[in-house]
Amino acid sequence: MHFTSEQHLDDGILERAFTLGEIPGILWTPVSASTSAPAPLILLGPPPLGLRKTYPRLAARARHAAADGFATATIELPGSGDRPREPAAEQALADLRRAMETGEPVTDEIIDALILPLVDKAVPEWQAALDALLSLPEIGGPVGYSGGVISIGVRLAVVEPRISAAVLFAGSFVPRATFEEARQVTIPLHVLLQWDDEGNDRQAALDLFDAFGTKEKTLHANMGGHTGVPQSAGDEAGRFLARHLK
Amino acid sequence: MHFTSEQHLDDGILERAFTLGEIPGILWTPVSASTSAPAPLILLGPPPLGLRKTYPRLAARARHAAADGFATATIELPGSGDRPREPAAEQALADLRRAMETGEPVTDEIIDALILPLVDKAVPEWQAALDALLSLPEIGGPVGYSGGVISIGVRLAVVEPRISAAVLFAGSFVPRATFEEARQVTIPLHVLLQWDDEGNDRQAALDLFDAFGTKEKTLHANMGGHTGVPQSAGDEAGRFLARHLK
Repeated sequence: MHFTSEQHLDDGILERAFTLGEIPGILWTPVSASTSAPAPLILLGPPPLGLRKTYPRLAARARHAAADGFATATIELPGSGDRPREPAAEQALADLRRAMETGEPVTDEIIDALILPLVDKAVPEWQAALDALLSLPEIGGPVGYSGGVISIGVRLAVVEPRISAAVLFAGSFVPRATFEEARQVTIPLHVLLQWDDEGNDRQAALDLFDAFGTKEKTLHANMGGHTGVPQSAGDEAGRFLARHLK
Repeated sequence: MHFTSEQHLDDGILERAFTLGEIPGILWTPVSASTSAPAPLILLGPPPLGLRKTYPRLAARARHAAADGFATATIELPGSGDRPREPAAEQALADLRRAMETGEPVTDEIIDALILPLVDKAVPEWQAALDALLSLPEIGGPVGYSGGVISIGVRLAVVEPRISAAVLFAGSFVPRATFEEARQVTIPLHVLLQWDDEGNDRQAALDLFDAFGTKEKTLHANMGGHTGVPQSAGDEAGRFLARHLK
């Protein structure tokens, strides 16, 4: 992990850009975090649009979390931002767009080809990032995950024992394999669903929520369209993480 | 409105039993409420089990609301508690139980017979209670509703302009007419759904949530069975009312 820049934001937050091998990332820490009082950590899983494009939303979530005493960090997803394109994923995305434009069904094969290789590649990267982040003296446990591509969050919740609670955003295309993995999740989950998001398969989101094996799961459905999560819903997700990580 | 008893609870709450004609009710007010600083009001719609049986849950909700500065009040539903039984409703309840025991479908006719006369009778009673409560100098507006029989809450949200926001508990049997009325609701709604409540028609609850015409609606689904609403979910419902009534 190599820090490439740093700046102090208002609200007492230190923002540092870093690279982890070839992967760019950002770490936000409350300046109050120290070796003697390390901050708990929330991993911010971005939507697959690149960190540059989603920076304002990520930084807003980071500020919010910092107000609760959390450090937050994110890394660029495979194939996003300035990272090399993944030819198979690009092909699956083209197939998906063509199916949606022509009104053909989006097949399981297209969804699997789009999502599963992304999950397989991203999850070990997030685990490596977690190794590096937790080696910093100002970062401690416990660790939460809050993120955009729900299949990545589900896989991480199953395979990464250092993650104690997760906020998941319903709405990505969900491969059948993710439903199977969902049954194995045992950590507390808080699922956000934008009810009136036309690009979202609402029934798949409800089915996935039903499939989660954990005894402690909550679904918060709101209006406002794909990116219109109400402030109150963001606050509730923050309280969920604060409740389970402190 | 005639007060029949009063007692001071801990936490600075005055609890008064009253009758409104033949209808028994309970009013809880923070002792801080006064003519110069009247408290906003939350109507607590009870489940149809009688106030005596549901008193502990109602009183807990009243204490919680009082901590946010709210007065709360409830009245006995028609046919519940010590109020005279309604023969038609008793017949519908017997039909419902027989259908559920024998595994026959619970028909729309049974649900309509069970719920619609209850709504028709209860809603004017709640409006009369609201008239009486708002005439007390220590009670002011705005008014919220938080209650158990969802069809009563929906009708009140449509016909009673003094109610500014409502918390509804999914899970009652829902007549077709309630779906039609739901489209006319325009006030902010917060709907609680116990996801793993086997006595609850989850799909009907989701369909009803979808039908609500209001632009500001949120659905919070949780685990814990019919009466096991988590503390955090109660807190969130309280914050919803505080946000919209202050």
